[in-house]
Amino acid sequence: MKRELLHTLQGLEEEYASKYLPHISIDCVVLGYHDRNLKVLLLKMKDLDQWSLPGGFVEHDMEIQAAAEKTLLDRTGASNIFLRQFKTYGSPCRTSDIYADMPEELWFKQRFISIGYYALVDYEDVEPQLDDVSQYCEWKDIRKLPQLMMDHRSMVEDALILLRKDLNYRPIGLNLLPEKFTMPELQSLYEIILGKKLNRGNFYRKILNYNILVKLDETRKGGAHKSPDLYTFDEVNYKEALEEGFKASW
Amino acid sequence: MKRELLHTLQGLEEEYASKYLPHISIDCVVLGYHDRNLKVLLLKMKDLDQWSLPGGFVEHDMEIQAAAEKTLLDRTGASNIFLRQFKTYGSPCRTSDIYADMPEELWFKQRFISIGYYALVDYEDVEPQLDDVSQYCEWKDIRKLPQLMMDHRSMVEDALILLRKDLNYRPIGLNLLPEKFTMPELQSLYEIILGKKLNRGNFYRKILNYNILVKLDETRKGGAHKSPDLYTFDEVNYKEALEEGFKASW
Repeated sequence: MKRELLHTLQGLEEEYASKYLPHISIDCVVLGYHDRNLKVLLLKMKDLDQWSLPGGFVEHDMEIQAAAEKTLLDRTGASNIFLRQFKTYGSPCRTSDIYADMPEELWFKQRFISIGYYALVDYEDVEPQLDDVSQYCEWKDIRKLPQLMMDHRSMVEDALILLRKDLNYRPIGLNLLPEKFTMPELQSLYEIILGKKLNRGNFYRKILNYNILVKLDETRKGGAHKSPDLYTFDEVNYKEALEEGFKASW
Repeated sequence: MKRELLHTLQGLEEEYASKYLPHISIDCVVLGYHDRNLKVLLLKMKDLDQWSLPGGFVEHDMEIQAAAEKTLLDRTGASNIFLRQFKTYGSPCRTSDIYADMPEELWFKQRFISIGYYALVDYEDVEPQLDDVSQYCEWKDIRKLPQLMMDHRSMVEDALILLRKDLNYRPIGLNLLPEKFTMPELQSLYEIILGKKLNRGNFYRKILNYNILVKLDETRKGGAHKSPDLYTFDEVNYKEALEEGFKASW
């Protein structure tokens, strides 16, 4: 029996049961880019050796998109960010493992159908915040995920597949990269999302062809090698190019 | 007051409240191709001058995908068909117009968050079936839709936008066209989905380049003009080509 977790859940029971719709939850795959890695924001519930995505519930009079925005704001302090619904998960036994040894009448133990969102945030802007039932809230490398609870690993995988498709149609780089970035940083972001190594010369040629980058009069200082040039996005050209979609095979 | 509708709803109340999860519904945009038109299957509820998409609810122990399949089977008699979840709709006031003058405690009047699916069916295979609350179930031309209730028009529009994207990645033609079809029929299907006229020569050249069509030793008899050649899909080549995605701008 997970005593501490059960105690926490029972303490929240009354408030949650009156405030939120039953059977419906929200889960967010929050992605940030740091140190040439794509990171996912995860929480570790008390008493459990598994991690989970930031999640929430839907208040009786609240839009589901607003509920997702609130979840994100509560966990990251960030608002006005790229947030997109991608899939709803509805297996009847999604949660059965976690609450197996808890009382049947527990509000958290009911069947939840969960609406999945993915969010792209600027890593530097985020201050991870604990929720009511968790012990840690941390960024984890998407390529080295710890054990995730329920169907949360599928959610991350599904979000990544969608991100791969969206790369040619939505301003993914603009939302994930800091304002100023180097070409190797941009290339590594594409490599992680596409799940493959890209040829440097081909990548540079293709991305420069779209005319969406502005080369700055600055370089990134501090490395052992020659300081690489810094770039920023030309937002107008970027958005125009996305309307047509990038046609390149990366 | 819509007396007949209310009476019907009240008669179903007890069964529905015990059988289905509250707050969650399913709506299906069912598409079929006939007579060079893309058709949507719609129902007209008793007492209302508005049409609706085929919908359903989720049984307590049922997968949401299975609930969508059941909705589709019940309304069309078709199973094993292309059915894809595309978006969940969760405005708190989705249903308020329809049930405005009905009792607050009516099961149907609660807030429903609806999971939207789209289905591609072979028009000839479908025998439209009424549900418990409807008077008619008919195919309507997607370009001449009658007034739809709630957010159902947005659902049709969203499904069509997704279909447009999926055209290059999923076997849309294979699922919508009869086994044997003419090039003008294939072209008109693409024109409706893309929402624009296509140049005949360009379309023929591009689609033939993918090597997904097999020209049959038959022609379509009966027209006033020269009988057009019949084609069928080469399913193996079609699926192979879709793995890469069609790169053409149509």
